[in-house]
Amino acid sequence: MLAFTSAQSVLQQCLCAKLQVKSAEQGSEAEWVEINRGLIIYICFFKGASEEIIPNMVKTLLNVKLSQTESGKYVSVLDLPGSTLIIPQVTLDGKVKGRSMQYQCNIEKEIGMEMYSQFVTQCERELTASTKCAEAGVVSIITTLSSLNAFLILFSKCRPPSIV
Amino acid sequence: MLAFTSAQSVLQQCLCAKLQVKSAEQGSEAEWVEINRGLIIYICFFKGASEEIIPNMVKTLLNVKLSQTESGKYVSVLDLPGSTLIIPQVTLDGKVKGRSMQYQCNIEKEIGMEMYSQFVTQCERELTASTKCAEAGVVSIITTLSSLNAFLILFSKCRPPSIV
Repeated sequence: MLAFTSAQSVLQQCLCAKLQVKSAEQGSEAEWVEINRGLIIYICFFKGASEEIIPNMVKTLLNVKLSQTESGKYVSVLDLPGSTLIIPQVTLDGKVKGRSMQYQCNIEKEIGMEMYSQFVTQCERELTASTKCAEAGVVSIITTLSSLNAFLILFSKCRPPSIV
Repeated sequence: MLAFTSAQSVLQQCLCAKLQVKSAEQGSEAEWVEINRGLIIYICFFKGASEEIIPNMVKTLLNVKLSQTESGKYVSVLDLPGSTLIIPQVTLDGKVKGRSMQYQCNIEKEIGMEMYSQFVTQCERELTASTKCAEAGVVSIITTLSSLNAFLILFSKCRPPSIV
């Protein structure tokens, strides 16, 4: 779990993760995206967030040493090298009020989509620029806001989510 | 994601979750616990936490309306009724320093274990007292601190983790 100015992310390490990005419909099968070992980044922008925060977020999330290698050393997802799955997660600003959750800090939808889109572009740029990731052929999958209600199958090991 | 005084939890809804609580060893197979639809509660106590905070945490976590029924209504895990899997998660107090994570707010190990044990007992009490849960035969599985490095297989739908 990492808190940024006007944004919040939850990181979950995985050995394998599979996300349904399109439901089965008449005449078409469901579509899934899949990554092997790496990091799932759930991300939420709050009201007032501006694009200046994105470069630092991307740098922090992709470089923080959270993944444990076989020798016990902690390295970043870029150095693992691991795959990355990014999921927009608008519920991360929820506050409990009575028995209900309130999401009053959510960014306006259009601005949020633009922020997410920029976040994704900058993550892709970093991941593509990583020689280690390229050599290992790891995958970076960025999902869209429309996949929020998708199925997620996760195979994880060790300390599950870290709030960043 | 819910922040309490001196504690933090991340909630993740699941359709099915399976956690390895004992590795395979010579002569014995790995042991797993499994729940169907319900809630995974990752929980972490911070330095200075005292047992007075537990009743309110248990009440909040088990009664907050996060689970969506087929009709679209949000209900608590007790009202769903759903199963519960509780996982101690000491990394939830992590702060980024440079490229490393620091866990300086972690509670002393013995006190943390005692807090966790009391949290578990009070959750079990609430879940056992729930007529809906009893009638539906839902399972509550509480894991121990020793299972922190276990494998987790998760089948989830909809908005993944909520930080409480």
